[in-house]
Amino acid sequence: MIVLFSDFGLSGPYIGQVKAVFAEIVPTVPVIDLFADAPAGDPRAGAYLLAAYDDVFPAGTIFFAVVDPGVGTARLPVIVLADGRWYVGPDNGLMALVARRAAPATVWEITWRPPHLSASFHGRDLFAPAVARLALGEAPPGRERAGLAEPMPHWPDDLAEIVYIDHYGNALTGMRAATLPAQARLAVGGRELARARTFGELPPGSAFWYQNSNGLAEIAVTGGRADRALGLGVGTPVTVIG
Amino acid sequence: MIVLFSDFGLSGPYIGQVKAVFAEIVPTVPVIDLFADAPAGDPRAGAYLLAAYDDVFPAGTIFFAVVDPGVGTARLPVIVLADGRWYVGPDNGLMALVARRAAPATVWEITWRPPHLSASFHGRDLFAPAVARLALGEAPPGRERAGLAEPMPHWPDDLAEIVYIDHYGNALTGMRAATLPAQARLAVGGRELARARTFGELPPGSAFWYQNSNGLAEIAVTGGRADRALGLGVGTPVTVIG
Amino acid sequence: MIVLFSDFGLSGPYIGQVKAVFAEIVPTVPVIDLFADAPAGDPRAGAYLLAAYDDVFPAGTIFFAVVDPGVGTARLPVIVLADGRWYVGPDNGLMALVARRAAPATVWEITWRPPHLSASFHGRDLFAPAVARLALGEAPPGRERAGLAEPMPHWPDDLAEIVYIDHYGNALTGMRAATLPAQARLAVGGRELARARTFGELPPGSAFWYQNSNGLAEIAVTGGRADRALGLGVGTPVTVIG
Repeated sequence: MIVLFSDFGLSGPYIGQVKAVFAEIVPTVPVIDLFADAPAGDPRAGAYLLAAYDDVFPAGTIFFAVVDPGVGTARLPVIVLADGRWYVGPDNGLMALVARRAAPATVWEITWRPPHLSASFHGRDLFAPAVARLALGEAPPGRERAGLAEPMPHWPDDLAEIVYIDHYGNALTGMRAATLPAQARLAVGGRELARARTFGELPPGSAFWYQNSNGLAEIAVTGGRADRALGLGVGTPVTVIG
Repeated sequence: MIVLFSDFGLSGPYIGQVKAVFAEIVPTVPVIDLFADAPAGDPRAGAYLLAAYDDVFPAGTIFFAVVDPGVGTARLPVIVLADGRWYVGPDNGLMALVARRAAPATVWEITWRPPHLSASFHGRDLFAPAVARLALGEAPPGRERAGLAEPMPHWPDDLAEIVYIDHYGNALTGMRAATLPAQARLAVGGRELARARTFGELPPGSAFWYQNSNGLAEIAVTGGRADRALGLGVGTPVTVIG
Repeated sequence: MIVLFSDFGLSGPYIGQVKAVFAEIVPTVPVIDLFADAPAGDPRAGAYLLAAYDDVFPAGTIFFAVVDPGVGTARLPVIVLADGRWYVGPDNGLMALVARRAAPATVWEITWRPPHLSASFHGRDLFAPAVARLALGEAPPGRERAGLAEPMPHWPDDLAEIVYIDHYGNALTGMRAATLPAQARLAVGGRELARARTFGELPPGSAFWYQNSNGLAEIAVTGGRADRALGLGVGTPVTVIG
């Protein structure tokens, strides 16, 4: 299974051109859109999302993981094998949390280059063909490295910020709920929020946080949009109390 | 064929995780996105949409039908067989119109539970696997009931409200056009609109209503957006004149 | 391979109903979403997009190309064969640039009609089945014509306007970069922009133009949105200097 994680947007011509590469080379492999709207140009927020949402996919899954504001500059193209799953994309921090949490991760620099490599769309020209080769069962088209060039040791294990606003206006933090005290309160947007189990428990308009279905601490408002009600966006800091 | 009808949003990680379940269990069954943006948390509006848009799909189609603001509370998970098509989702009114218009519908409560059931994402954990089982040709994983627990008898057969705003700004009502007088006018947003056959017939900027390609009465403005021109949104009431 | 190019929107029920036609008739043919958000009701902007984004697809690709504000009026439904690729949609200018750049193009009027043809959704009822027939290897279901009824000779070979705003806020022009002088500057939104190779070369906040990965001249701002920074939208004129 190939899983797409990017900031390309579902609309527009980018995801389609990537999928066309798969349709030509590995037409029978399922391709799943996970995130096409990871925060644009923000590999740090994306790193915490990717490391939270990969767990539900089976071993052997190949992630096309591309949030690449430095496309065309010197950052390395890499392949990471972590806990049985493959990740293909730029070495700019996007895979730093995946690699850190694995035991251990193996990293290859992609040294293969396509006959035609555009300056601005390595997703289509370089990363998608590399994903397709892995899906064909080929070896990583590159050389093994000791680790990521950009492991981002200064990034925390869990990020006390909003990393994504979803379709309902819920605000996902970069913190795994399991790392927080059971009765922790989260201070965000000038409010202190208690924990709840799910949406149905509280009266309409209540703001709360809960462990979402992929394990992240998430902020929500029953019957409303937390982003608007609390003034939240990607990058808004969160403070853990208790 | 599996058809997705939900308020999950096309972007973000929800639809992808549902499709990953199908890719693992029934990888060769086509999966069609019908609505990923049914009105959020509004099973009533969704019920009229679902009952209008299912007709174009062949017998044997399985609808993943999930608009589920009460996830994690006591509402039943159900499977409905109506006019040869299957519907899997919460018993919260979303399937009330489908069941009412069928002759007759058969209802099962889903009693099967997955090894891991999150509190907030039954779409992925419960409903998607139930859909996949039906797609494999298995019997409904539950027990037959006399009918829906929430048949919503107080909901009208046709809803004189806006139930959806589409990509062009057209406003779909919950009324089947065939139930309206041929020369009916619709009063909405302070205007009275006459019927037209299609967009090409009227000068630019004209507001009108017409029978859309799925049978609903729909309000449009030639060369413009009806939602903005007339101030329409989901829930705006419509009055039939004549 | 079937490629979808339309203004139907990815959300809502339109693309899904088109794909359901393919799932029934040609379930094993890959279907790629290229643009579902071509400028709404604007076949002129769409014509320059389509003619720029078709090149990356192999011979034999069938484009479902439908931007059709005149649906239900007298415009012809056509099939165009240009440089080995097929295009199915309305003869309203949308395929004018594709046909003009081919050497030469062959055109058929679609004379086949389905048992049920709605007044407003020929994409589902007429064009999608015609695409499916071509994907089955059948001959075009119509009669050959000398050319398009609407070849739009007054439209320029390259359009000095913004034809699309992408997910990042980048503004695509209708001009092929290869037709511009190497050192050309583009005047747009009250600014004069120099050419750059890609995003990584300039300090954050810099506005520039570059040849995008499909060959169009595109306007961007490093680390920002060109549409907001420069006040650009579909239709904004661009002037080439030098």
